[in-house]
Amino acid sequence: MSKKLQMIVKSKVRDIYNVFLIDEINTGLSTYVNQKKYIYIIDENVYNLFKEELKISISSERYIFIKSCEENKQLDYAQLVIRKLIDLQIRKDDVLIAIGGGITQDIVTFISSILFRGIDWVFFPTTLLAQCDSCIGSKSSINFDNFKNLLGTFNPPSNIFICNKFLLTLNESEIRSGIGEMMHYFLFEGYDIAERLINNMTMLLQNPLNLQEFIVESLRIKKGIIEQDEFDIGIRHLFNYGHTFGHALESITKYQIPHGQAITLGMDLANYISFQRNILSKKDYLKMKNLLKYNTPDFKFNHNNIENYLNALSKDKKNKDNKLGCILSKEPGDLQKFYLDFDLQLKNEILQYSL
Amino acid sequence: MSKKLQMIVKSKVRDIYNVFLIDEINTGLSTYVNQKKYIYIIDENVYNLFKEELKISISSERYIFIKSCEENKQLDYAQLVIRKLIDLQIRKDDVLIAIGGGITQDIVTFISSILFRGIDWVFFPTTLLAQCDSCIGSKSSINFDNFKNLLGTFNPPSNIFICNKFLLTLNESEIRSGIGEMMHYFLFEGYDIAERLINNMTMLLQNPLNLQEFIVESLRIKKGIIEQDEFDIGIRHLFNYGHTFGHALESITKYQIPHGQAITLGMDLANYISFQRNILSKKDYLKMKNLLKYNTPDFKFNHNNIENYLNALSKDKKNKDNKLGCILSKEPGDLQKFYLDFDLQLKNEILQYSL
Repeated sequence: MSKKLQMIVKSKVRDIYNVFLIDEINTGLSTYVNQKKYIYIIDENVYNLFKEELKISISSERYIFIKSCEENKQLDYAQLVIRKLIDLQIRKDDVLIAIGGGITQDIVTFISSILFRGIDWVFFPTTLLAQCDSCIGSKSSINFDNFKNLLGTFNPPSNIFICNKFLLTLNESEIRSGIGEMMHYFLFEGYDIAERLINNMTMLLQNPLNLQEFIVESLRIKKGIIEQDEFDIGIRHLFNYGHTFGHALESITKYQIPHGQAITLGMDLANYISFQRNILSKKDYLKMKNLLKYNTPDFKFNHNNIENYLNALSKDKKNKDNKLGCILSKEPGDLQKFYLDFDLQLKNEILQYSL
Repeated sequence: MSKKLQMIVKSKVRDIYNVFLIDEINTGLSTYVNQKKYIYIIDENVYNLFKEELKISISSERYIFIKSCEENKQLDYAQLVIRKLIDLQIRKDDVLIAIGGGITQDIVTFISSILFRGIDWVFFPTTLLAQCDSCIGSKSSINFDNFKNLLGTFNPPSNIFICNKFLLTLNESEIRSGIGEMMHYFLFEGYDIAERLINNMTMLLQNPLNLQEFIVESLRIKKGIIEQDEFDIGIRHLFNYGHTFGHALESITKYQIPHGQAITLGMDLANYISFQRNILSKKDYLKMKNLLKYNTPDFKFNHNNIENYLNALSKDKKNKDNKLGCILSKEPGDLQKFYLDFDLQLKNEILQYSL
């Protein structure tokens, strides 16, 4: 059994937190047994897949199963979980151990931010998206009434344990979604790692255990920025590359396209707009398109969906003065924030992108 | 009209924030008009008392009145306010302008912490307690179901405007409550300012405008500690002096004793216990008692209420391993954290204190 301290992340909320790589779930979990202070919050699906490995965590009888669906990423559901924590007699110095993907993380981050003005928590991310991206960076997003991600907080776990065993149960779509998110970090930094990932894509889909090297690269790039701008008020905005266009796509397709693939199309579209506006050379645009195409979902903008899409873009939280706040690319590794008018030019560029 | 930048407070949440002293409400408010980005959240009582002065703030038609009673310091009520903010089409870069006392502050701090992962807010504290204490320090406390202050966050306003006009409408009990809280800061630092305040008490009760010098001293002392320990994990615990014993008193008397007076008794009781345990000299104990007596509420511990009181103490969030976490005094200006057994000695000390 091996446990490697891969990374220490600086934070304003809790000075530092640690990312460990482990090869057995128990290597991480065994740190958190035999003390009354731990309460486990476990994605029910993950528990059903890893009953034997997670047995140790429920032996304490201080655990809560959650159903991690989008409908439960909601303030009402967070309140239900808080009531269960009260039933388990949670105290200010208890520690929550979260085991699950991004939605589990959102719920536990949010609860641990507002309960007793912040309590300690530990995270075992179980999806590729959570392992390569969301596990660091402190953010939570919670839906309120019909408003997606209206609420949120910053509260990183004190320790993160990344175990690649969890990746073995993911389907291809989930792996591709994580790959899309990693590509966004790699193209933020440059071209080489992105190319290496795509060159190995077949092998990685066949054997997800090999993803760990790319997970580490992805977290390394993210760490460099979130340590400078944890609260997302400046340079961290550059990570919205592909996301502004991707989120609007997710919205109009009712979240049927996996997140990482929606942002893959989002990056390609952002690049196309950059190229059309002479910000990005044709050569670099095509070079990146040649990588992104292996993970771009099959979706076309047309006259039937364009107004809907522009409307979704117009609701982005990062917009200012009715302009679209988005990240464009000058070349691989060189991104910049722009505010685009919602004019005919933008509409035509999006339509032309799909021709 | 004068506006004086009295203090700049360092914060991990927002780098710095400012405390201004103003002599007219409008001097502060006039900064925040004629722009769509401001939404006012105003205590209804304060509005009724200062309609003319606050007219400017509601002219924008982006305002919410709140009823600041303990029953509304609740997550459910915060949700109602969030829905009203959504109706007012709040955006991430809008600024909330809160005008009211501690409960208004709790609600607005909490909302501004969780909405869009944190939004900017400005505070006009209108009670002495809010002006001399809670306006700096970043904290919110929100009740959940039947659990008092179970939820909370840290999010200071960007600017605080302290206007002593607000103090003119407070009754003696509210002034005395603020004086109790200030005494706790003064005895944290030493003896002299505490003595000066008590020597001037009659004059201050007659003309609350003279309180401003003491408000500034109180905030100066608090600033020195919260800048070191904003998130209340170390030295800031010393500010619980008088509060552990005071909160339990408030709880068993159903909040009929004003907060600042409950903590005055709390300090006196903490001093008595310190004296009994040879931590504090008799001379210093009596010296402080001689100041505190001018603001101590008329309450006696006896065999009818002691178990109830010990039970309330046993529920304090800062307790550890079934021991009472509390701050005792070694001398004026020298406090220390102790964990006391819930034993016969403690019970007898509390009973003897009232003899």
